[in-house]
Amino acid sequence: MDKEFEKRIRDKRYLTKVMEPAEAAKFINPNMTLGVSGFTIAGYPKVIAGELAKRADNGEKLDLTVYSGASLGDEFDGELARKGALKKRIPYQTNKDLRNAINDGKVGYHDVPLGLMPVWVKRNFLNHVDVAIIEATAIDENGNIIPTTSVGTSNIYAECADKIIIEVNTYVPASLEGVHDVYSPENPPYTKPIPITKVDDRIGTPYIKCDFDKVVAVVHSTIPDNGRKVVPSDAEFDAMAKNLVNFLKNEVEHKRLCNPLPPIQAGVGSVSNAVLECLKDSDFEDLTVYSEVLQNSIFDLIEAGKVKCASGTSLTISWDKIDEFFKNFEKYKDKIVLRPQEISNHPEVIRRLGIIAINTVIEADIYGNTNSSYINGCRLMNGVGGSGDYCENAGLSIFITKSTAKNGEISCIVPLVSHVDHTIHEIHALITEQGVADLRGLDPIERAKTIIENCAHPKFKQELYDYLDKAINTCEYKEMPVDIEDAYKFPNI
Amino acid sequence: MDKEFEKRIRDKRYLTKVMEPAEAAKFINPNMTLGVSGFTIAGYPKVIAGELAKRADNGEKLDLTVYSGASLGDEFDGELARKGALKKRIPYQTNKDLRNAINDGKVGYHDVPLGLMPVWVKRNFLNHVDVAIIEATAIDENGNIIPTTSVGTSNIYAECADKIIIEVNTYVPASLEGVHDVYSPENPPYTKPIPITKVDDRIGTPYIKCDFDKVVAVVHSTIPDNGRKVVPSDAEFDAMAKNLVNFLKNEVEHKRLCNPLPPIQAGVGSVSNAVLECLKDSDFEDLTVYSEVLQNSIFDLIEAGKVKCASGTSLTISWDKIDEFFKNFEKYKDKIVLRPQEISNHPEVIRRLGIIAINTVIEADIYGNTNSSYINGCRLMNGVGGSGDYCENAGLSIFITKSTAKNGEISCIVPLVSHVDHTIHEIHALITEQGVADLRGLDPIERAKTIIENCAHPKFKQELYDYLDKAINTCEYKEMPVDIEDAYKFPNI
Repeated sequence: MDKEFEKRIRDKRYLTKVMEPAEAAKFINPNMTLGVSGFTIAGYPKVIAGELAKRADNGEKLDLTVYSGASLGDEFDGELARKGALKKRIPYQTNKDLRNAINDGKVGYHDVPLGLMPVWVKRNFLNHVDVAIIEATAIDENGNIIPTTSVGTSNIYAECADKIIIEVNTYVPASLEGVHDVYSPENPPYTKPIPITKVDDRIGTPYIKCDFDKVVAVVHSTIPDNGRKVVPSDAEFDAMAKNLVNFLKNEVEHKRLCNPLPPIQAGVGSVSNAVLECLKDSDFEDLTVYSEVLQNSIFDLIEAGKVKCASGTSLTISWDKIDEFFKNFEKYKDKIVLRPQEISNHPEVIRRLGIIAINTVIEADIYGNTNSSYINGCRLMNGVGGSGDYCENAGLSIFITKSTAKNGEISCIVPLVSHVDHTIHEIHALITEQGVADLRGLDPIERAKTIIENCAHPKFKQELYDYLDKAINTCEYKEMPVDIEDAYKFPNI
Repeated sequence: MDKEFEKRIRDKRYLTKVMEPAEAAKFINPNMTLGVSGFTIAGYPKVIAGELAKRADNGEKLDLTVYSGASLGDEFDGELARKGALKKRIPYQTNKDLRNAINDGKVGYHDVPLGLMPVWVKRNFLNHVDVAIIEATAIDENGNIIPTTSVGTSNIYAECADKIIIEVNTYVPASLEGVHDVYSPENPPYTKPIPITKVDDRIGTPYIKCDFDKVVAVVHSTIPDNGRKVVPSDAEFDAMAKNLVNFLKNEVEHKRLCNPLPPIQAGVGSVSNAVLECLKDSDFEDLTVYSEVLQNSIFDLIEAGKVKCASGTSLTISWDKIDEFFKNFEKYKDKIVLRPQEISNHPEVIRRLGIIAINTVIEADIYGNTNSSYINGCRLMNGVGGSGDYCENAGLSIFITKSTAKNGEISCIVPLVSHVDHTIHEIHALITEQGVADLRGLDPIERAKTIIENCAHPKFKQELYDYLDKAINTCEYKEMPVDIEDAYKFPNI
């Protein structure tokens, strides 16, 4: 047995459960529901999935339902989708092959808001979880699980599943232990206030409680998270970031925000990453982060002394940076907390901390509705993720997008979004590289004019104004006039 | 001076500020922003509005911006709209003439979610409030305001406004004193947990703090709330209620709900009122209510011994029942708490209590999106109100509607809603008189089939299935296929 692997199994009873991945995978039967660790390609199980893929490749019809924290790496979501081993996937994905399988109608999908996923499992809203598969840094002296780069919903799967398979991953440094803070409120009517009033408050345990008798297998993994590379910043990202910083400065000047700023949340992906990166050059000091995903940029900001503490549910580091990140981990460790997604995305804490939520969208309409999940209203991208958890309860809810997509060919500001994920009630300001539309207190036509004037790309402005004028003139009702036919013909109206 | 009026001004300093309404109204100048008491036609100021209407009638261009708790009675919203005295109205209205003025583009409107309205005012997101007008049952010995039939946002307007006008209403019984519980969290970064863990927890003061120096006038009012009459139940309401009760019973059996049930929230209006009324005949005992509006039916349920306590921000009693209600008030008093809408609609408390949210909609689409505010996507009805505050954070979020409208001529289940107020992420179940669609964990096509089969009216089912089949066949993407053109031609596809 690998020495490091053995060393990390500190409760020696568990050594009796060590086995090869192929053996462990036999506990998983067709049609089962799995609850697996992993959140935005961090801390997901990597070796069992490979065994399941092999079985599917050999013709076994697995039809698995897989619940997770959020998106899993290609070793799981990609492999199982390519082999046709999935029946249903909840609550989030970002893998190209899985996405294609979903859009082809081959895999069922329900993008449950990420903060609610653990609640739905705890409250029996979904299938009973047959087997939990949880990636671990270690198993402690009392048989509890030390998670790896995410907590996600792992604590709930460990609690609710009939059987548990643990993948102890010795690629991740043992020093990850201590960074987690695991807590889950009791179900109603016994729920108590969550005692977090500051980003770095610790309220739980550094481990996931685990019932030894439910553990059927412990396997060894040495595979790193396969996090996507982030796109480097460009002039448009820089302009968006500058607009964001100026907007926040203005909010502080008008006493609508405190300084130091309330904690920042930023969605996952290159846009958010690049925009956050730019806070490095701002005058803001003592920044804090209360988010779901802690991406590359957060650690750059910690290194730059800009961010003093950050709370999330996952460490989502691009694969090209992960070795360096782990090497430097001790530098960051006392500044970060990883919580279950039930807590990182909890409305109670988000509202209390007055979080500045910064989420990206595919398109926004002139009235302020936003679409973050379906291109043309029917082509699924990733799903709604945690954006709703934050924007609905944030102290300040900002949506950001470039004003155009497809090399400037199409406008991301449209008359009517083709799919609504977040309504006008969940946005305070829209920011593009063109400018900022502060929508608070505006009626629909004021909103439309502000968004077109401040956020649309100059080459689409006239068409948007033309649409608005025509809608105002032709619609019988003048408060929020809509011309559905023209809206969907845009920009050819 | 009226003896009862004088008696209710217990801080005698305030007697020096007593004046006629016309004099008091002079503190209100054109273009001012007013913050007024009142929530769903309960506890709104009634005599100052009349004076403003007279001035507008005499040709004065008032252009007032009026913020409130929620909808105000005809004496305020109706009168000022008819006289053209309003420039902008936030956050909610239900008055026919005001609605028409908004739909004609004559009055600006922004339907801010009701639980957020006080937060927006506290955090300077909106105009500075020049004058607060607050209806009071009494002014206590320390000069604080005892509200009447609602708390709404009055506590925040009293705090933030430059000047305060108090309308002491002697029509309401003095015994209303003691029913209110006024509390508002501090702004970030000083916000603490809200210490409510049970419906009847009292955490604040029975009065609204008031700065004597800001009070410019105290006027006498004797006008009752002009609450709308509720439509009596009918066979379809009864069927909806039966479906609701059976659904809840099934949830308890499957341990997805505790028993006694978590607190119930029900939207304002006849549908909710009728459906709640039917709980009287159910087997459920020891019901509790945590809602914004406490309507007629709640008090019937209290009388029937079904509801043991109820928390809201307003007592919205129809005008034909209000005398009887006040006469019997002592019977209800120890079972009800009136809180600021910031607390009645607070995500922290709603999530903690695991509330069963029951909200009505204009239409729902086959995927589960709902429209509660715009007919045909552009004709404003009332606004989103507090439905989002509840459905986004409820333990169980139920939307109810009759399956048809306009005497059965049109289907309330449609291929695509013409306006989205609440997305598929904010609904657990849809209930019509036809049945229940439990949407949890279903992918879009499963949702569509469930909604059509269980909730649509038989006479529209085939057209809905035809639409779905055609969308599946023609749309390139099969997860949530949409055919926008056909969707808006429905039922003529």
